[in-house]
Amino acid sequence: MRLEHIGIAVRSLEDSNELFEKLLGRPHYKIEEVASEYVKTSFFKIGESKVELLEATSPDSAIAKYVAKRGEGIHHVAFEVEDIHAEMERLRSEGFTLLNEQPKRGADNKLVCFVHPKSANGVLIELCQEVREEEG
Amino acid sequence: MRLEHIGIAVRSLEDSNELFEKLLGRPHYKIEEVASEYVKTSFFKIGESKVELLEATSPDSAIAKYVAKRGEGIHHVAFEVEDIHAEMERLRSEGFTLLNEQPKRGADNKLVCFVHPKSANGVLIELCQEVREEEG
Repeated sequence: MRLEHIGIAVRSLEDSNELFEKLLGRPHYKIEEVASEYVKTSFFKIGESKVELLEATSPDSAIAKYVAKRGEGIHHVAFEVEDIHAEMERLRSEGFTLLNEQPKRGADNKLVCFVHPKSANGVLIELCQEVREEEG
Repeated sequence: MRLEHIGIAVRSLEDSNELFEKLLGRPHYKIEEVASEYVKTSFFKIGESKVELLEATSPDSAIAKYVAKRGEGIHHVAFEVEDIHAEMERLRSEGFTLLNEQPKRGADNKLVCFVHPKSANGVLIELCQEVREEEG
């Protein structure tokens, strides 16, 4: 398991890219839109982890709702696992509530699944696994 | 720079240690009290990063105030830097507001400094640097 990234909800990707470029002392290395999640994202590499900034592209986006309710800030933390199906099964059997039944496609060529913050001390946890060819 | 840890504010370290042990599939490897900050912390290792759980030991603690206002959840993200004094100077010159003028002692044998969330998109950022002998 690896701390793959932290996801930060922002109002303006353009403004925040500039801010985090100064803060982290390096530029973002990619921008990617995930249409199915109504978000535009940018990524900064920090050692073996990343910082992902997320801007909503629709008021229906979970990010838009988060920012409206709590303001900008850390939205989730993502852990990379070897086998997301096995890890989802393990967490279900430990009593955790998962937000999706099956892994779904996320940004950055990943299969992702979220753990409900109510079952994880208020923390929205993403599990992610690199998409392998047979799952593409 | 390395994503050193994410800090999660919790109500009960005992309950949350049990919860995160199940969630992360591994036990915490240490518990440490930082009396000056009125917190008791526990640590889980995840690759080159850590998850730090923080429980307030006094109502005056920043963690107690955070939990009272927003509930349990991700409280801060910490980046390790080579030279915390130089990095503080760099961030000041970039216009960021620092919460302490000088580095202070944190948990886990670190010198730490916080960047005001108002200058960082609502994210409380900790800079940290391993204490070297001459700074001990």
